[in-house]
Amino acid sequence: MIMKNRDHPVVIGIVGDSAAGKTTLAAGLAQVLGPERSVNICIDDYHKYSRAQRAEIGITPHDPDCNYMDILEQHVYLLRDGQPILKPTYNHDGGILGPPEYIEPRDFIILEGLLGYATPKLRDAYDVKFYLEPEDDLRLRWKLRRDTQFGSYDAEQLKAALEQLKKDSEESVIPQRKYADMVVCFYPPDDDPGESGGRLNVSHILRPTLPHLDLEPVLEAGADRGIMLELARDIDARPVDALHIFGSLLDNQAEELANYLWSLIPNEPTPHPALGIYRDSDNVAHRSHPLALSQLLITHYLLNAALGQHAI
Amino acid sequence: MIMKNRDHPVVIGIVGDSAAGKTTLAAGLAQVLGPERSVNICIDDYHKYSRAQRAEIGITPHDPDCNYMDILEQHVYLLRDGQPILKPTYNHDGGILGPPEYIEPRDFIILEGLLGYATPKLRDAYDVKFYLEPEDDLRLRWKLRRDTQFGSYDAEQLKAALEQLKKDSEESVIPQRKYADMVVCFYPPDDDPGESGGRLNVSHILRPTLPHLDLEPVLEAGADRGIMLELARDIDARPVDALHIFGSLLDNQAEELANYLWSLIPNEPTPHPALGIYRDSDNVAHRSHPLALSQLLITHYLLNAALGQHAI
Repeated sequence: MIMKNRDHPVVIGIVGDSAAGKTTLAAGLAQVLGPERSVNICIDDYHKYSRAQRAEIGITPHDPDCNYMDILEQHVYLLRDGQPILKPTYNHDGGILGPPEYIEPRDFIILEGLLGYATPKLRDAYDVKFYLEPEDDLRLRWKLRRDTQFGSYDAEQLKAALEQLKKDSEESVIPQRKYADMVVCFYPPDDDPGESGGRLNVSHILRPTLPHLDLEPVLEAGADRGIMLELARDIDARPVDALHIFGSLLDNQAEELANYLWSLIPNEPTPHPALGIYRDSDNVAHRSHPLALSQLLITHYLLNAALGQHAI
Repeated sequence: MIMKNRDHPVVIGIVGDSAAGKTTLAAGLAQVLGPERSVNICIDDYHKYSRAQRAEIGITPHDPDCNYMDILEQHVYLLRDGQPILKPTYNHDGGILGPPEYIEPRDFIILEGLLGYATPKLRDAYDVKFYLEPEDDLRLRWKLRRDTQFGSYDAEQLKAALEQLKKDSEESVIPQRKYADMVVCFYPPDDDPGESGGRLNVSHILRPTLPHLDLEPVLEAGADRGIMLELARDIDARPVDALHIFGSLLDNQAEELANYLWSLIPNEPTPHPALGIYRDSDNVAHRSHPLALSQLLITHYLLNAALGQHAI
C-alpha cells in the first residue's frame, strides 16, 4: 500500500466517525503541505440526497447507498491519474446539493469522510490511511457543540438520535478502523475528564504498513515528560507502536519539537501559523500542542510516502 | 470512424447552430432507438457559468472557454467504456447551474450541442456524426419563436444581438460542419419561402464516411415525387450523395415508406407514434413527413453502425 512508485499524486485518507475531527486534521494538513499543492475532498459532497430527501426516504449519510460511491471511486482514480474532475457539492448549512465544482489534480489529494474505506477499490487508491478515534465521550461533546440542531431536542429525542447514530457508526464507520495505517486517538487527561481542547492527550497507533519514520530524535527531544513510544497490542491484539503525546507538554518543549520537525521539511524554513489550530463553538481559534505535533508527524509520513525516502 | 469493433456503446453526435433543431432530432432518435437503450446528453449542461455570470464576464456559450470541454471529453469516454458519470446540469429556464445528475451508460449515447466537434478527442469518440444546417432564414424564424426574450428587444437591440450570434457561429459552430458524416438541411419549398413546419423539404448530404446503407428500395418506393438521390458536390467541392425528401410527399406515400423502413428494424413491428413530431411555439404537436423519414433513415445508419452489418 505504501512506497508505491511515485508516478501519481499522494492520496491520503482521513476516516472517522461524525465529529471525530476529520475536517480539522484535513485543513491543517492542506496548510502544511501547501494549499497550492493539495486538494481536500469531503466525501459528504457525494451525497445522493438533500437532507429533506433523506428524511423522506428514511436513509442516513452513514449508509453507502446514500452516496455515489461508484462516482467517488471513479473520481479518486481520475485525480490519481492526473485528470481533473467535476466534483459534486453538498452544502451542510442548508443540507442541499449544489452545482458541481471543477477540481484540478494536485500533488496531495486529501479525502475525508465517514465512508472513505468502505469499498475495496477505494481502499486500494490510498497511499496512507488515517483513522480518527477520539475517546467516545469527548467526540460526543464535540458533536453536540458543533451540530446545533441538537439544542432544540428534548432529552428523549436526543437519546433516540444518539442511539441511531451509534447504531449507524457500529454498522458502517467503525469497521473501517482496521484498514488504517495509523489510528489517531485524542483523549482527556486523567485529572480532567471533561477537557475537550488544548490539554487533550493524543495516542498514535502506528501499524507496520506505515512508511518508515525514524522517531528517535523526536523521542529524545520530548523525553522527559512530553512524548513516549511504547510497544503495544492494538484492540485486535496485533502488535503496534503506540506513540503518546501529552497535552501537558510545556510550550517551549512543544515549540522546540515543532521547530525540529519543521527543519526537516524541505523549503519550509518557519513553522506554519495554522499548525495546531482548532476552533471552538464560537469560532475562536485555539492552539493544541498534541494537534500541532500530530499534524507535523503525519506530514512527515506523507512526505515519506511521496518521496519514497526517509524524511527524518 | 465507422464500423468500429462494437465493444462499446454507439456514440452519436448532433451538432448545429442555435435553434437548428438538435433537441428535436435527438429526442426523436431516443424514442425510436428506445428510451431504455439510449441516453441524451445536452452539451449545454457543461456550461461553466450561469447566465448572470456570463453577462458579467462577457462570454457567450459559443466560446469553448465557457464550457468544461475537458470534462465533457472525459465523460464521453467514460460512457463509451461502460462507466456511469455524474453529469452537470444547466437549467435553460433560469439560466442557472444545478446539482449534477447520475447517468448510467446505455447502448446509444446521443450528444447534442453547439460544440460537439470542437476538439479532436471529442470528434474521435463518435461513431456517427450529424450536422444540422437548416436554411438560415428558417433557423432564424425558429430561433425568434423559441427564445422569447427577443420579444422585448427593440429593432436596434435585436440587430445587435443577431449580429453577435452570427459572429459567434461563424467562429466556433459552422467550422465543425466539415467533420460530420451527414449534413441535414431543412429548407422551405420554392413556392412558400415563409414555411417553417410540415411542408419543409430536407436534403441529406451523405459523406462516404457513413456506414453503408442501400437506399435502392427507399428510392423506388418514393420515386414518383417524394424522394430523390443525386450525385452532387458539397460546398467544399467534394463529391457527395444528396438525398432529397420533399414536404409535398403525400400522406399515403410517406406512410408506406415509413412502414417499409420500420419493417427493417428488428423487434419493432409498428411505427413509433413520436416519429416526425415537432412542437410549435404554443407547444402544439405537429407531424412532418421529411422529419419522420429523416429520423428513420438516421436510425438505420445508427443500427448499421451498431451491428456492423447492413440493416437494409
